[in-house]
Amino acid sequence: MGHLANKHLLGLEPTPADDIKKIIDTAFTFREVLDRPIKKVPTLQGKTIVNLFYEPSTRTRISFELAQKRLSADTVNFSASTSSLSKGESFKDTAQNIEAMKIDGIVMRHPSPGAPNHLTKFVDSVIINAGDGMHEHPTQALLDMMSIQEKLGKIKGLKIAIIGDITHSRVARSNMIGLTKLGAEVTVCGPPTLMPVDVEQFGVMVNYNLNEVLEWADAVNVLRIQFERQGVSYIPSVREYRDLFGITRERIEALDKTLTIMHPGPMNRGVEIDSDVADSKNAIILDQVLNGVAVRMSLLYLLLGDIPEDQQEKE
Amino acid sequence: MGHLANKHLLGLEPTPADDIKKIIDTAFTFREVLDRPIKKVPTLQGKTIVNLFYEPSTRTRISFELAQKRLSADTVNFSASTSSLSKGESFKDTAQNIEAMKIDGIVMRHPSPGAPNHLTKFVDSVIINAGDGMHEHPTQALLDMMSIQEKLGKIKGLKIAIIGDITHSRVARSNMIGLTKLGAEVTVCGPPTLMPVDVEQFGVMVNYNLNEVLEWADAVNVLRIQFERQGVSYIPSVREYRDLFGITRERIEALDKTLTIMHPGPMNRGVEIDSDVADSKNAIILDQVLNGVAVRMSLLYLLLGDIPEDQQEKE
Amino acid sequence: MGHLANKHLLGLEPTPADDIKKIIDTAFTFREVLDRPIKKVPTLQGKTIVNLFYEPSTRTRISFELAQKRLSADTVNFSASTSSLSKGESFKDTAQNIEAMKIDGIVMRHPSPGAPNHLTKFVDSVIINAGDGMHEHPTQALLDMMSIQEKLGKIKGLKIAIIGDITHSRVARSNMIGLTKLGAEVTVCGPPTLMPVDVEQFGVMVNYNLNEVLEWADAVNVLRIQFERQGVSYIPSVREYRDLFGITRERIEALDKTLTIMHPGPMNRGVEIDSDVADSKNAIILDQVLNGVAVRMSLLYLLLGDIPEDQQEKE
Repeated sequence: MGHLANKHLLGLEPTPADDIKKIIDTAFTFREVLDRPIKKVPTLQGKTIVNLFYEPSTRTRISFELAQKRLSADTVNFSASTSSLSKGESFKDTAQNIEAMKIDGIVMRHPSPGAPNHLTKFVDSVIINAGDGMHEHPTQALLDMMSIQEKLGKIKGLKIAIIGDITHSRVARSNMIGLTKLGAEVTVCGPPTLMPVDVEQFGVMVNYNLNEVLEWADAVNVLRIQFERQGVSYIPSVREYRDLFGITRERIEALDKTLTIMHPGPMNRGVEIDSDVADSKNAIILDQVLNGVAVRMSLLYLLLGDIPEDQQEKE
Repeated sequence: MGHLANKHLLGLEPTPADDIKKIIDTAFTFREVLDRPIKKVPTLQGKTIVNLFYEPSTRTRISFELAQKRLSADTVNFSASTSSLSKGESFKDTAQNIEAMKIDGIVMRHPSPGAPNHLTKFVDSVIINAGDGMHEHPTQALLDMMSIQEKLGKIKGLKIAIIGDITHSRVARSNMIGLTKLGAEVTVCGPPTLMPVDVEQFGVMVNYNLNEVLEWADAVNVLRIQFERQGVSYIPSVREYRDLFGITRERIEALDKTLTIMHPGPMNRGVEIDSDVADSKNAIILDQVLNGVAVRMSLLYLLLGDIPEDQQEKE
Repeated sequence: MGHLANKHLLGLEPTPADDIKKIIDTAFTFREVLDRPIKKVPTLQGKTIVNLFYEPSTRTRISFELAQKRLSADTVNFSASTSSLSKGESFKDTAQNIEAMKIDGIVMRHPSPGAPNHLTKFVDSVIINAGDGMHEHPTQALLDMMSIQEKLGKIKGLKIAIIGDITHSRVARSNMIGLTKLGAEVTVCGPPTLMPVDVEQFGVMVNYNLNEVLEWADAVNVLRIQFERQGVSYIPSVREYRDLFGITRERIEALDKTLTIMHPGPMNRGVEIDSDVADSKNAIILDQVLNGVAVRMSLLYLLLGDIPEDQQEKE
């Protein structure tokens, strides 16, 4: 048995609340490592991790790569654009071939929901989901929760709002699942055309009135409007979106309380969030980025690190 | 003098049989390293190797990169698509510039036959051919031979069949050369339009009847049909190719013996090989992939590793 | 206070002469490391450096990457083509996000003059300019000066000619600035259409007669004709360019002295320089490449390395 109940991190849905807490608690330990002049520990020396990215990515890929290098793991990057996928090889064969080279872990981003789960059926490596279509993006939600806990001291009982395109957002899904598991109250808010019909099944509330939601919330997670993913018809215009759902300076100044502001990035400044808000002292957007490295170090350690002998259980 | 007679690995043609055996024998030692939790040795610490790929590649590039990292070498990847080749620099200048940075070894893939050999004329680094046009792909043949030896205990005296497009295959060429040097009997089989007219010069037999060849062989190496490399006119249709030269389940089940199945990958399942065959217990296709890392570690060590002082000969 | 007066290397214009000398002197120490079998020192262990390239590059990127790896730093490459820049994120947000991951240094190439300087305004990391539009390419000039000093024993009092497209060349600008700071005499020579009107402000002389310039000079730095950057109309024809400004064998043989030949690469052989000249014993073009790694190691150490406690000054 490993540090966590599951061998893989495929999403927060199959992850027990205790393991979510354990990942976040351990991440705070690694945050201390990141404040040292020598930001490196030998934890995963001699382990090999492949970053298997079927979608372009900057921050997630770099964040994982830094986490791996700071744990002293060996890292190989594999992106679909430069691969033999152009030779028509099947996903299964690519994965089995990579694993045959004695890979300990695979970090995977893929446009198809469930692709990392599918991968577990024919490889033995530890699989970490770095975003699968519109399904989950669990490490993003873990870093969001860690950032909330750092800023507000707890997660349980807090009121968290998620604003934007809920339907197409794997960030929203993983946050809804993780936050409710840890006992937060969650309200989602966004255009009705971008709200899943069955969103209440996640145990969250829906409110289409942004001002009410901001009055209610302790922290707000502002989703990126992904122009490149959804059809134009969902949103009448950028201006109308901003008017109804934009986290503007006016809206924030109108509140008689401090509201913690989060955004998974990359931001469309002036669309879903105003620059003044994004750069304000209540925004923890860059803390989220730093915590992302810490959460990924924590996760890689918990999934791939050796269990000290005196902690090994008999099975 | 180094561990091997030649300074470079340009192909198996210029490599003495004893050195081929030495590379394979040493590779079995590195296979053991790959089975350890810490799959890393300090053998090439402080050495720098450049992977100079003028053709896209996934498995060969990753295999070399893993071999280098597991030997603790520093690795720099250079692919033509992101390079200053677009600025019109000559091949010679690119190579000399890279070497001037004190590179110990260059692993090179190039579409032109003889490019790695050409490279040796103006750089001093150790050159390893990772595939040059239709000429040779020596590390692929080395891993194929290592896998045969692992599965069947020897190479000498064995009957090995190579099936497919012999004309355009650098894998076939290096296998024919290597296997005959080590005393195996080799039969090649494939469409007459894809059979070199002078193929017997390699000391191999030709037989266009696949069923006869399978009856004869101890192991069969199934080549990939490279749709992207050859003209359509060579093969009337995929279906006809499969009927005549496909390694189908029916053909394998009709044999009253076990036949070892190899494929260099990536596979076109259902074309040159059936999925049932590729995934059967007599297929050693994923062993080939693992042995590929071991053979490349062995080769890099033998070409770039220091000679222990007590083994150094006076020149 | 660090090893150098400035925290960043944005160009040679803001760099004091003493610091230029210090970088070059220290680079000779690292040159010795490059001649060892183990070309690696632990100087920057646990430091992370991002190579942020908004323009394609081979030699500069590889040179920096090798310098970083040989100092045992962790390196992450980020090129605009594979990044989330396609998602419309601002330059500032990209940089702040990268820095939030606790990056110690950023090596930046960008098509806009001043981009690295702009970057210093919103990140705390050490910034090194690896070429910014037509502004500066300071590490290239540093390696050029180091190579002159290695070949000719000094820089002060020497006569250095720079030949080619002075207007569009960041290499020319950084060389003019650096060489005059160290007390060399500099003459620039090239087509009048490619000569800045106010070039004398750099403290250099202008002479359009190449033969006179070559008679005068101790060393000549031959710029690459960058067909891809300038309009066709600047140069009537390649042949005419070569006739008037090409460093041809005839011109070099006609001199009754030895002239040191430099070129920043990649060369257009037969255009701005003849192959015979480029490969002659007075050409130090490949020494420049090697010195480039040493200069970058020196610079990274001086900007990012820890100050030994007994050398720390009270502020």
